[in-house]
Amino acid sequence: MYIVCFDLEGVFTPEVWIAVSKATEINDLKLTTRDISDYDVLMKNRIAILKKNNITLKRIQEIISNMDILYGARDFLDYIRSVSQVVIVTDSFIEFVMPFMEKLGFPLCFCHNLETNEEGIITDYKIRTSEMKKKTVLALKKLNYEVIAAGDSYNDVAMLLEAKHGILFRPPKNVVEQFPELPVVSEYEELKVLISKYLEL
Amino acid sequence: MYIVCFDLEGVFTPEVWIAVSKATEINDLKLTTRDISDYDVLMKNRIAILKKNNITLKRIQEIISNMDILYGARDFLDYIRSVSQVVIVTDSFIEFVMPFMEKLGFPLCFCHNLETNEEGIITDYKIRTSEMKKKTVLALKKLNYEVIAAGDSYNDVAMLLEAKHGILFRPPKNVVEQFPELPVVSEYEELKVLISKYLEL
Repeated sequence: MYIVCFDLEGVFTPEVWIAVSKATEINDLKLTTRDISDYDVLMKNRIAILKKNNITLKRIQEIISNMDILYGARDFLDYIRSVSQVVIVTDSFIEFVMPFMEKLGFPLCFCHNLETNEEGIITDYKIRTSEMKKKTVLALKKLNYEVIAAGDSYNDVAMLLEAKHGILFRPPKNVVEQFPELPVVSEYEELKVLISKYLEL
Repeated sequence: MYIVCFDLEGVFTPEVWIAVSKATEINDLKLTTRDISDYDVLMKNRIAILKKNNITLKRIQEIISNMDILYGARDFLDYIRSVSQVVIVTDSFIEFVMPFMEKLGFPLCFCHNLETNEEGIITDYKIRTSEMKKKTVLALKKLNYEVIAAGDSYNDVAMLLEAKHGILFRPPKNVVEQFPELPVVSEYEELKVLISKYLEL
């Protein structure tokens, strides 16, 4: 029996930090792991910037609530959920993703979480488990699922390679070049056709 | 971070085999593990009866499609999915449960599957993994989730005891007597209050 794991940002939603950067007009919040390769340094930097500018979690949640999911995402996901089981696996935080989950019809979402102080300022982030994406695939395999996984970026690759069928969706060029064994698709219709083939529909 | 595991039949839906027995007017399909304690013997018996009476999987799926989920189930489940992550964990079969999943808004469902022949007659059942309910809780714990689990019957007990918080929902008397350590609730409102307490909402 199959189960399908999807990354969230870049697959179903725009990038949260870019939207937060735009809405708050703080350019440094646009920085990603492409600019600061150490994720922990990057996140601590983001948290420090938010604190300095007195930006609460509630304010960020408002920004996220105003973000649209990607065009066609809901229809695509509804279809896959009607023919298979689906888990969203994201390195984002539950406090950020819930407005998206509502727009996507509350699929199951595996993610991390944030800590806030009494003023609602983010003070820290908690990784639920390291290498969470890969470990999720391993856990599902141990439950005798055959896993199909799709994601857009470098942090998805371990999950895609651990899956029986890994798929890159709208990836950056360097990821495509580095992992030529992974099929690349850029539209939901193509992704639907490919997943349907794996599901033998 | 918490995740909530729910059994399906008896918690959100009526019992499938009882409905199939009524619709087909075959009394022996009403038998459960209370009558035939060995599940494999019971299932092989059911499959033989269906075959003998030329009842296809499609016919059973039609019966299931006409079954209502329990009153209040969707509202309750929608609420829990808006405040936590949810997995349905059932010893039923994907071919049976999908009509219910549609009515419940496609939560993630872990289950087993059936095999059919070219005439659409069920020929065998495939357990995805033995002790699936308990193993699901163990897998989620390994992913650093704290698990809340609710179920109604004997086959849920291993899952409920493995969870951080196990809850019996509308259980038979003998299960209540045998596992006095598990809290018992009989209405969705009570279940919502208890789960909310565990979630610290």
